[in-house]
Amino acid sequence: MIVHETQIRVRYAETDKMGYVYYGNYATYFEVARVEMLRSQGVSYASMEDSGVMMPVLETSHKFFKPGLYDDLLTIKTYIEEKPGVRVFFDYEVFNEKGDKLSIGKTTLVFVNKETGKPCNPPEVFKKAVCSKFDE
Amino acid sequence: MIVHETQIRVRYAETDKMGYVYYGNYATYFEVARVEMLRSQGVSYASMEDSGVMMPVLETSHKFFKPGLYDDLLTIKTYIEEKPGVRVFFDYEVFNEKGDKLSIGKTTLVFVNKETGKPCNPPEVFKKAVCSKFDE
Amino acid sequence: MIVHETQIRVRYAETDKMGYVYYGNYATYFEVARVEMLRSQGVSYASMEDSGVMMPVLETSHKFFKPGLYDDLLTIKTYIEEKPGVRVFFDYEVFNEKGDKLSIGKTTLVFVNKETGKPCNPPEVFKKAVCSKFDE
Amino acid sequence: MIVHETQIRVRYAETDKMGYVYYGNYATYFEVARVEMLRSQGVSYASMEDSGVMMPVLETSHKFFKPGLYDDLLTIKTYIEEKPGVRVFFDYEVFNEKGDKLSIGKTTLVFVNKETGKPCNPPEVFKKAVCSKFDE
Repeated sequence: MIVHETQIRVRYAETDKMGYVYYGNYATYFEVARVEMLRSQGVSYASMEDSGVMMPVLETSHKFFKPGLYDDLLTIKTYIEEKPGVRVFFDYEVFNEKGDKLSIGKTTLVFVNKETGKPCNPPEVFKKAVCSKFDE
Repeated sequence: MIVHETQIRVRYAETDKMGYVYYGNYATYFEVARVEMLRSQGVSYASMEDSGVMMPVLETSHKFFKPGLYDDLLTIKTYIEEKPGVRVFFDYEVFNEKGDKLSIGKTTLVFVNKETGKPCNPPEVFKKAVCSKFDE
Repeated sequence: MIVHETQIRVRYAETDKMGYVYYGNYATYFEVARVEMLRSQGVSYASMEDSGVMMPVLETSHKFFKPGLYDDLLTIKTYIEEKPGVRVFFDYEVFNEKGDKLSIGKTTLVFVNKETGKPCNPPEVFKKAVCSKFDE
Repeated sequence: MIVHETQIRVRYAETDKMGYVYYGNYATYFEVARVEMLRSQGVSYASMEDSGVMMPVLETSHKFFKPGLYDDLLTIKTYIEEKPGVRVFFDYEVFNEKGDKLSIGKTTLVFVNKETGKPCNPPEVFKKAVCSKFDE
């Protein structure tokens, strides 16, 4: 299992008239969290995409327990629990500074060859940095 | 069951560097779709909120089959299949102009009294316009 | 001069904790307004981009007089007052349903050849549909 | 004069199908930049708003020289050059990691009493932390 923590400060733009983080913005927080997790493992998502492999989202789900508020410094805990193949499963937990769990979420991403548009295996850099952790 | 169709034109702002609608933006499309469904039943969500009841999202899930593209005129089909109580369950299907099903989604919303912050029953206007349809 | 009106319903996602339309979202409203103006003249911005010419924004300015509110049905009046060359100048006025002028704005866009990345003349379809109006 | 630097990593959600940061997102970057500048001076915008004074944007303008790209670590240099009164004028410069100046911008904000909705003087905390710097 790989675990990583990222901090994100809630922007005014991300709140809505309820005074809460708009629910759709958690998708962006999860994006930041998984990209930072990969960076912490030595994988740059940007470089991976430049070299021809992209990772669109196939599926996502979120549950909301408490609202995120403006200027909250959120902690996103990100988990990969299963060895990635063509698909990668990420899990997320979002906490505020008081330690309240605000929400949880999941996303399933798939490796896609940019030229063919077809699903493909993870590139070597990803296999070495991430998949290999699950063989230990 | 209540069914409603809404059309949404994809904005440039909503695309990402893959050239697809960014996955988080479907949350906004679903918001528009459910608000327009309520409006078609004679319920203004804005007025409901002004009169003291808001409907935050408790839970959401989305599956993506094909990407939405810039300038696509999407059709969102929205369903309420179960008589709403304190919670309302919406289901969504997203189609492009060719009729391809791009994605499906679900959201669970809860009625909350703005003053107490506690879950509450649907307001009268909602009961008459929406819940009563399920008694027929 | 070319003038066009577009209507845009304010989404919950576009409000902020002040209860106002977040100021950055007017950029998106202006995008929608100019694309719909072009469509009304027979020019599809999407097709233009597919055929190799894109129009990034060089400059933008906005003034805000009154806030846009959730569920407001805004009217955006869009103007091209000067014959477009390599650059196109759009002016915008935003009104709510009561006729209050909420804000005004300007954007300067430039035609860019996608392959070379260099500024270029407007494509033929744009010249015929838009520029020619200024020769009458 | 007060000067401050903030770093912002470009998110995938903030790019568009040109592969650039969507122009409207600079408004959000400027928001983050000015809030972090205030925080660096000991002023929490969130607390200020909680205590009854908000700062809506009256006016904004941006010029774009080069595109911001996905995963760029941008540096936003923020300036207050004039002693703030009822209004505060912020200037911004955006640089990428290579040191290219991508864009510049300005925003004018106004202090507004949340209860009366009327413009007001800066609160004491702001006067001491920010305005007083211009008396030296």
